[in-house]
Amino acid sequence: MDKEKSFKKLKVGILGATGTVGQKFIVLLQNHPWFEISALAASKESAGKTYEEAVKGRWKQEVDIPESIRGIVIQDASKPNLKCDFVFSGLDAGVAGEIEKAFAAAGYGVISNTKNYRTEQDVPLMVPEVNPDHASIIPFQQKRRKWTGFIVTNPNCVVVPLVMALKPVMDKFGVSKIMLTSMQAISGAGYPGVPSLDILDNVIPMIGGEEPKVEWEPLKLLGDVKKDGFKLANIKISAQCNRVPTKDGHFLTVAFSTRKPAKVGEIKRLIKNFKGEPQKMKLPSAPQKPLFYHEDEYRPQTRLDRDREGGMSVSVGRLREDAVLDFKMVVLGHNTIRGAAGAAILNAELLHKKGYLKAR
Amino acid sequence: MDKEKSFKKLKVGILGATGTVGQKFIVLLQNHPWFEISALAASKESAGKTYEEAVKGRWKQEVDIPESIRGIVIQDASKPNLKCDFVFSGLDAGVAGEIEKAFAAAGYGVISNTKNYRTEQDVPLMVPEVNPDHASIIPFQQKRRKWTGFIVTNPNCVVVPLVMALKPVMDKFGVSKIMLTSMQAISGAGYPGVPSLDILDNVIPMIGGEEPKVEWEPLKLLGDVKKDGFKLANIKISAQCNRVPTKDGHFLTVAFSTRKPAKVGEIKRLIKNFKGEPQKMKLPSAPQKPLFYHEDEYRPQTRLDRDREGGMSVSVGRLREDAVLDFKMVVLGHNTIRGAAGAAILNAELLHKKGYLKAR
Amino acid sequence: MDKEKSFKKLKVGILGATGTVGQKFIVLLQNHPWFEISALAASKESAGKTYEEAVKGRWKQEVDIPESIRGIVIQDASKPNLKCDFVFSGLDAGVAGEIEKAFAAAGYGVISNTKNYRTEQDVPLMVPEVNPDHASIIPFQQKRRKWTGFIVTNPNCVVVPLVMALKPVMDKFGVSKIMLTSMQAISGAGYPGVPSLDILDNVIPMIGGEEPKVEWEPLKLLGDVKKDGFKLANIKISAQCNRVPTKDGHFLTVAFSTRKPAKVGEIKRLIKNFKGEPQKMKLPSAPQKPLFYHEDEYRPQTRLDRDREGGMSVSVGRLREDAVLDFKMVVLGHNTIRGAAGAAILNAELLHKKGYLKAR
Amino acid sequence: MDKEKSFKKLKVGILGATGTVGQKFIVLLQNHPWFEISALAASKESAGKTYEEAVKGRWKQEVDIPESIRGIVIQDASKPNLKCDFVFSGLDAGVAGEIEKAFAAAGYGVISNTKNYRTEQDVPLMVPEVNPDHASIIPFQQKRRKWTGFIVTNPNCVVVPLVMALKPVMDKFGVSKIMLTSMQAISGAGYPGVPSLDILDNVIPMIGGEEPKVEWEPLKLLGDVKKDGFKLANIKISAQCNRVPTKDGHFLTVAFSTRKPAKVGEIKRLIKNFKGEPQKMKLPSAPQKPLFYHEDEYRPQTRLDRDREGGMSVSVGRLREDAVLDFKMVVLGHNTIRGAAGAAILNAELLHKKGYLKAR
Repeated sequence: MDKEKSFKKLKVGILGATGTVGQKFIVLLQNHPWFEISALAASKESAGKTYEEAVKGRWKQEVDIPESIRGIVIQDASKPNLKCDFVFSGLDAGVAGEIEKAFAAAGYGVISNTKNYRTEQDVPLMVPEVNPDHASIIPFQQKRRKWTGFIVTNPNCVVVPLVMALKPVMDKFGVSKIMLTSMQAISGAGYPGVPSLDILDNVIPMIGGEEPKVEWEPLKLLGDVKKDGFKLANIKISAQCNRVPTKDGHFLTVAFSTRKPAKVGEIKRLIKNFKGEPQKMKLPSAPQKPLFYHEDEYRPQTRLDRDREGGMSVSVGRLREDAVLDFKMVVLGHNTIRGAAGAAILNAELLHKKGYLKAR
Repeated sequence: MDKEKSFKKLKVGILGATGTVGQKFIVLLQNHPWFEISALAASKESAGKTYEEAVKGRWKQEVDIPESIRGIVIQDASKPNLKCDFVFSGLDAGVAGEIEKAFAAAGYGVISNTKNYRTEQDVPLMVPEVNPDHASIIPFQQKRRKWTGFIVTNPNCVVVPLVMALKPVMDKFGVSKIMLTSMQAISGAGYPGVPSLDILDNVIPMIGGEEPKVEWEPLKLLGDVKKDGFKLANIKISAQCNRVPTKDGHFLTVAFSTRKPAKVGEIKRLIKNFKGEPQKMKLPSAPQKPLFYHEDEYRPQTRLDRDREGGMSVSVGRLREDAVLDFKMVVLGHNTIRGAAGAAILNAELLHKKGYLKAR
Repeated sequence: MDKEKSFKKLKVGILGATGTVGQKFIVLLQNHPWFEISALAASKESAGKTYEEAVKGRWKQEVDIPESIRGIVIQDASKPNLKCDFVFSGLDAGVAGEIEKAFAAAGYGVISNTKNYRTEQDVPLMVPEVNPDHASIIPFQQKRRKWTGFIVTNPNCVVVPLVMALKPVMDKFGVSKIMLTSMQAISGAGYPGVPSLDILDNVIPMIGGEEPKVEWEPLKLLGDVKKDGFKLANIKISAQCNRVPTKDGHFLTVAFSTRKPAKVGEIKRLIKNFKGEPQKMKLPSAPQKPLFYHEDEYRPQTRLDRDREGGMSVSVGRLREDAVLDFKMVVLGHNTIRGAAGAAILNAELLHKKGYLKAR
Repeated sequence: MDKEKSFKKLKVGILGATGTVGQKFIVLLQNHPWFEISALAASKESAGKTYEEAVKGRWKQEVDIPESIRGIVIQDASKPNLKCDFVFSGLDAGVAGEIEKAFAAAGYGVISNTKNYRTEQDVPLMVPEVNPDHASIIPFQQKRRKWTGFIVTNPNCVVVPLVMALKPVMDKFGVSKIMLTSMQAISGAGYPGVPSLDILDNVIPMIGGEEPKVEWEPLKLLGDVKKDGFKLANIKISAQCNRVPTKDGHFLTVAFSTRKPAKVGEIKRLIKNFKGEPQKMKLPSAPQKPLFYHEDEYRPQTRLDRDREGGMSVSVGRLREDAVLDFKMVVLGHNTIRGAAGAAILNAELLHKKGYLKAR
């Protein structure tokens, strides 16, 4: 870390800092070139404790708590007065609605991983490679809600790799139908999350509340932004979401139909060459290849490919024609990185570059 | 076991007795009321050894080798002269073609779990609950090939639960399109099969040769038998087959369209009430409920439901309308029992009851 | 089940019927020749619900809830008035102390799997193959506590296989030192128990409170019963208890020193020929071989051997000389059957045969 | 990588480059500041192929094959003429004996992970933090065998963490007895290695040939080097080696007795402060803390701690008094890094620094 430059870094607060997503924010923001953590907030139970005390027995990352974070005293997330320029939210949906609103009203940019505001007509649901233009709704949001801050959300952890893999196809050929089956990792349920007795040597055919999100969120992401809201994309989506015994990485089989005729070779080429705004802007967390196409038909595999480019690159493979819809393929994304904390950080980087997030 | 009756039992030989499927035949035929194992055959390497010697370090069943089997001396499978009334074949596909032909030519009924003859125009590919009438091709097979014995096959381990779950829908409404994703257990690959380094904490998006079988075999099974062959069903099928870290039990997500309009409630009722020939005939290995419908939307689960009725009952759940095709649901079948050895045994029971298999 | 005899069966109540151990009692007592479940009790939250309602989403057995049990209305365990002859207790330790006492005082025999009374000077801690004579303390217990009923406990799930494997050595040569390392299955922690994020691809070096139990309980079990208490065995025991990713089956490496010189061959013979009271009395749940010695040095294995004789037989293997103590070996027992519910049932069978449990 | 300096790097050949250990060498040597891979050798079957072709379907690392390695044409390992300054050997034991000898005779330093020469009286078995002085036997080896090169070996993957954890105790108090139980990861068996059917939901009580190595190698490592051989340490060691379903990381429970009286606190301090030669010399692959002591009694855990300092730091925890020997603790080391490829690389760095390995 460069001492000389660090004074320019934006100060960041983490809402829900002790939870699984909050922990991931802390790990991923270590040594971030633009942002530095200056405040941590969580529930009243944790407030007043040092971070180290608060997560004792609950820190589940493969790396230690960063030295600089251990001693930070946690603040009560329900009070929107953290010393920072903007906040990341990894709050539980049960409390996120009120708290995120309070922070936005108090002038903070709230970069949220939580579902509460994803469906609102004036809140961007954004993946920087897919719909960076949706940030343009922010002024409307601020005016309508009389907020000096704002809320920007990222989608569900299955939706991120899904829309990323389909984005180049969508742009060139249009997509009319999508049918997907997910095999989702246990980390998607947080901690303690899935009991081991439920998942060892098992597949569970249901993840509460997941399928509606996976069937709706892509419509907003792949739709258009208007001055005062969004126009949903016209796509039929069917999702079947399952839990399997893997630690990280949501694996999808995806079949889809295009609006214009396409060929396997063309789509592969589009996927291989795909670059989005983050790549053009060289955002710090942007992977070089947001989509990595595997020619080996035994890839991608959850364990071997989830960590590609620090977990920010989505893997695609086995693209081929389909007997029922037009094409089918497999897609893999790291659920807690590309599908959660990393997604939010990339959103913040984009928003900073676009001028929405600055020092207060 | 009833000593008085046992003299009437048909004597059974097992081809490929040392392999995974062979072992399962041995376990499942213990105490069978109609059949008793009288001969075991395998490759030249094993021939001459007792069964216990031959499978040393390779017996992978959760129960011990039955006492009565341990000492049986294995014979060379390439010579079609076993002392028995008919044979089960769990041979590897690489050698099954020649050996099964030799046995059929020599007058044995060959009840095969191997893929080699499944696609032949004169060989039944049969699941007793689905297409028991296909047995009627046997005389044509014998005439055409000048065999005094015959070959009957059962389908791939994914196809069995798939066609069983769809059979009642097919009969009443017709099925035009099927799209499925499988999450298949490691035991499907035999022993040593899948290296643990490949599957721990992983999903593998490819099982060599599996998808073409899953997309074709249902067409024959759900099609019609003619005097001199089969008429394939007119269904578009798309399969995406994956390996997941479960021991037994192939789990499927299935979407499908019907030819005539149907309702979720009607289909559920059909599934719940479904009975096939084995149930009517009260075949010894027939489950009371060939299809078990779970109203709990968190079921079926691989580990909790694979052993239903000794692994012979197929579980279905989460039937609901689909945004792309008409309906979707999940299906679970025990791959080494209902999808392999148990399937062959049920075929043999049906064929015995119908008079095709008798004491020689 | 024989209708004619069933009227003679003892009526059984289950305390803590909805928990993991309670569920196992229900599964194992199905079709029991001597006992039949007539009452279920649990916490106030469950009281008043049918069993099926109360365990909705929490029934984690591989078989369905028995038909005869589904509709039983759960009673409040804190009130000792169940219609039954005696009770099994699978209560949580937090509440077992008061409730078990109340039932014993009210005249019930309480066959408990809980730890609360294991260390009491007047309560038998019993494995029928190891110390059936400890039942003789019951009259002293009743007199001292002025109870018309009584409490009998079975040990911790690691201790059961440990003392069983060492019992024949103890009887013949004496044992002075034991050093063991356990690799314990997730089911030992109940439900929800161990989070999957904690145990997938992991070993955890600590199970709270386990090691002290494992180091103390064998001293009572392998000690002597007196008129008014127990004399602890004089053995040094060291335990290191770990959680590993297996579903059922506690696997132990055990090293030990004998008081008198012994040879590997002698000890193996003792283990192979070992029979206890349950075998002599032919108790219904008694395994034919309480100890099964494996000559194959790759056995026992957790998954392959835990279900031996319905999970009631303990497996031993790899007995050999040790460079530090005298001998070492591996031991495997099914933790929820032989180490919990099955242990309690076998205790009840012994106590019934000995006249302690009868129709009230 | 700094182009200006790279001309000074030593050129390295990898023997057995396509195997599991060979792959790990390639991953770990990427961007190494002192060494660069210039030649790859393997069996005749692979010779002549590019590396990428040769490992197709067998590259099992979580990162891609480095760009610079893909196109290297593999040479026949049986011919000792690689263009390099020294070689790492990850050869199978079946062929390593002859090949390593040939390379040493031809003037190459052979840094071997294979077992073949570990027990030789003139070959160092070395862990740089434990017995760096054993390198002094090299001139005797060269003279005795008339080699211009030499062989240096690193120990078995269980032995590395074991001797490292005990080294500070040994130095200060002496160690007289060690009793350990290992829970070893599947990657220890290479690829394809352990069949998934053998290890899913299982513990296997035997790893062929492992225990004798674990009981002998520490005696040489912790012993003294003489002019013409080694004096073995006088320690009684008992090992019980088991396979468990973890991917990487060998986890040990270890009990031991010291020669002089010691206290838990003293030993903990020694472990926490331990530094070896690699730390003093600042070798590039040396971890800052070769031993990391965990005060949290639920740590170390295999998955959470195996990657500490790139897998080069060994974790120790739960040190406490023992009822049978003097102390007990748990120890964790990354088997394919600290216990194999990383161990060999650290040996090479030490030998380079000491002047044994230089440009030829």
